[in-house]
Amino acid sequence: MSALTPFTDLQDIAKAVTHRQVSAVDLVRDILDAIDRHNPSLNAYITVSGEAALAAAERVEKQVAQKKDPGPLAGVPIAIKDLILTADSPTTGGSKIFGTGIPEGDEATVVKRLRKAGAIILGKTNLHEVALGVTSDNEHFGPVRNPWNAEHVAGGSSGGSAAAVAAGLCAASVGTDTRGSIRIPSSCCGVTGFKPTYGLLPTDGIVPLAPSLDHVGPMTHTVADAALMLGAMIGGKAGIDRFMKALRVSSKGLVIGISEYHLRDLDDDVGKAIDKALKVLRPLVKDIREVELPALEAAQEASAAITAAEAIAYHDRYLKATPSAYGPAVRKRLEGGYKVTALEYLYAMATRAAVRGAFAQIFTEVDLLVGATLPALPPRIDERTVHINGVEANTVESFTRFNSPQNLAGLPSLSIPCGLAKGLPIGLQFIGAEGGDEAVITLGAAFQRETHWHQRRPPIAR
Amino acid sequence: MSALTPFTDLQDIAKAVTHRQVSAVDLVRDILDAIDRHNPSLNAYITVSGEAALAAAERVEKQVAQKKDPGPLAGVPIAIKDLILTADSPTTGGSKIFGTGIPEGDEATVVKRLRKAGAIILGKTNLHEVALGVTSDNEHFGPVRNPWNAEHVAGGSSGGSAAAVAAGLCAASVGTDTRGSIRIPSSCCGVTGFKPTYGLLPTDGIVPLAPSLDHVGPMTHTVADAALMLGAMIGGKAGIDRFMKALRVSSKGLVIGISEYHLRDLDDDVGKAIDKALKVLRPLVKDIREVELPALEAAQEASAAITAAEAIAYHDRYLKATPSAYGPAVRKRLEGGYKVTALEYLYAMATRAAVRGAFAQIFTEVDLLVGATLPALPPRIDERTVHINGVEANTVESFTRFNSPQNLAGLPSLSIPCGLAKGLPIGLQFIGAEGGDEAVITLGAAFQRETHWHQRRPPIAR
Repeated sequence: MSALTPFTDLQDIAKAVTHRQVSAVDLVRDILDAIDRHNPSLNAYITVSGEAALAAAERVEKQVAQKKDPGPLAGVPIAIKDLILTADSPTTGGSKIFGTGIPEGDEATVVKRLRKAGAIILGKTNLHEVALGVTSDNEHFGPVRNPWNAEHVAGGSSGGSAAAVAAGLCAASVGTDTRGSIRIPSSCCGVTGFKPTYGLLPTDGIVPLAPSLDHVGPMTHTVADAALMLGAMIGGKAGIDRFMKALRVSSKGLVIGISEYHLRDLDDDVGKAIDKALKVLRPLVKDIREVELPALEAAQEASAAITAAEAIAYHDRYLKATPSAYGPAVRKRLEGGYKVTALEYLYAMATRAAVRGAFAQIFTEVDLLVGATLPALPPRIDERTVHINGVEANTVESFTRFNSPQNLAGLPSLSIPCGLAKGLPIGLQFIGAEGGDEAVITLGAAFQRETHWHQRRPPIAR
Repeated sequence: MSALTPFTDLQDIAKAVTHRQVSAVDLVRDILDAIDRHNPSLNAYITVSGEAALAAAERVEKQVAQKKDPGPLAGVPIAIKDLILTADSPTTGGSKIFGTGIPEGDEATVVKRLRKAGAIILGKTNLHEVALGVTSDNEHFGPVRNPWNAEHVAGGSSGGSAAAVAAGLCAASVGTDTRGSIRIPSSCCGVTGFKPTYGLLPTDGIVPLAPSLDHVGPMTHTVADAALMLGAMIGGKAGIDRFMKALRVSSKGLVIGISEYHLRDLDDDVGKAIDKALKVLRPLVKDIREVELPALEAAQEASAAITAAEAIAYHDRYLKATPSAYGPAVRKRLEGGYKVTALEYLYAMATRAAVRGAFAQIFTEVDLLVGATLPALPPRIDERTVHINGVEANTVESFTRFNSPQNLAGLPSLSIPCGLAKGLPIGLQFIGAEGGDEAVITLGAAFQRETHWHQRRPPIAR
């Protein structure tokens, strides 16, 4: 095996490290060098824990030398969104509300599981403040810049996690998704992002945004890497086996639904890429048919009301204690939560049940749904709107509308790159039934075996 | 066996009917006569379905004649609270909002199960309008009067169900409990009322008040009758066996907690009766010890907020369509729900989790809690307050404070008669751990084997 890079398949990194073909310490050192070079311009990391990462890599090498099993992610250098608690570094939540950061301790279960699997934590990635936003234009730590074009947003809220993967500043990362916060930046940065079924992964040790909607999941270069990360985050051999097996299953028996909702009002550049992707998918599956989901029309408003209400239930105490510790824009959005009535919240929960029911009904007819992740290309950082065929549209509304319904319903949803336009990536979204995470992985992997979009690198990483 | 009465044990009624020792039709006819005589003054029933009841009794007799098993409640004449849907009679919810009542169809699952067990539905009982109140002083159908003293309230919201049992206008009845609506009228009327663990019985086909708090359960003369009714409402032989077995288990191994919260600020008449009841309990159990539940101090406010918010989420459409179809007092209380914010609702839900956790902790130390059901005797219908040692107190607050915490936490809670003062009944409450319904039944049955309060009849029924 030649030298490892952050773009090597995670399984190959782990194998090479386990068989002492390469040095985990060398890989970490290479990536720390790349972070030194590129993070000042990309702003993907808030905290880099170089010494801790090197020490962890040394421990993995020592385990290998002692013939101990270093785990399925042996030596894999990863980044953690900076609202997920880690034992050895502070957590800011992308905000100043925690002062110098939530101190050590109470590490998130998913982080503990990744460490146990052998992964090396490089640091904590930048994000939209408290995860409430889609651009990662952070008012305290500066905007995350898109590795494909530094003038453009990386998407959010897990923008730093996506940018770090895209730029090779880690081999994989962990993000969170409340209305689309894994899939939106994955689409913007041309990486693979997977939001699993609600509840599949524990969210303890993660600063909440809206607990009934908060998900955590992997952001990677490939679906195969996402499967391995997801398995390790579930923990134990069974978790890994379940999703590695899904990679090998044939997609030929799957029936795919094309939901009009998830293709509505697309920018032409996006529409062309999705059309091409559907042509690629056609021979990979049993059938592709159109489906309608009228219940989804109410999903965005319900998702926004639930997010606003649950977010203020957490942030109320911080808003009262240190209001100036929030950036003005996020503070204003949070304060909107005070105006949500219990009646609006309960109606939103009823809508949520209807959306869940409508999806469940569709999934008696098809195995998966396919659509776009975003209707538009990532805007410039200095723009306050997106453009869809030249027409301005609200950025939050545009970037969440294909994502929030699945978040509301807790369904597994994957965004993978399927094209480039004007030098910026485009995302394709696969949606599964509740608990049907494997089928999403199966189809995503089949698509990536036929395409090369996931192997394209931004100029900065070439 | 001599002639049956509505005060005969349900099991004996069913046995006598099954063995053709008595006629189910005769028993129904006797009770219909009693309803004719006493309901005009008690106002316990809104609808009496005499013909349907006689026809059902004839069908039971026919089954017996054909050697078919008529079920464990064969020929038992019961009454159903008039917000529980029945297939053959309208349901008013104690209101005019449904016009002439929700028509036939969509019968509640618990009613279907009771019919399947052989029970005969006599009619639908009066209640506090839409179950939102503790006196059953119904603004449309008139007040339910207490069979012990017609000048006094029967309690609520299941006041008609309690009064009908107490007066012998049925052999057993079904009520619902959102903040105490089974236990409050059971205490006021001197009957046995059991709110099982949340979710043990399905609440489909029941007009909701606050869905996350709504329970349904039996109201009877004895704990043994409650066990049989509960078993039949669970359905199948397993349901019956589970609770009939609990009647035969010894109480001698149980450790009882006395919660200061549930004995606070009692009227002296109530306090004396509870003291005597505790003396009766002492030799029946392993130990009685004092426990503290400080988390309960926040339960009442949380329960009120959740009830207000969830009630308006149901009644919003009716309030907008036909506001004048509500009585003024209930309408005003419902409209208060519009003012609850999502933040208040979510904080109330957090309090609920804390209350549930505090109870769960206590139930690692004791098997059951014992306390009062109400701090005061049932007030006169023309009074707007209750009196506790001569001091006026708010009726809703006073009657719910020992009841709403267990409702909030979903815990099995039983009220049984334990005394009389000024000619009015006093209730003793047994509280079990979540899912620990059997232990509540076991101790309640043990208490009734040692006491006679459940055999006392109001003057009207002597």
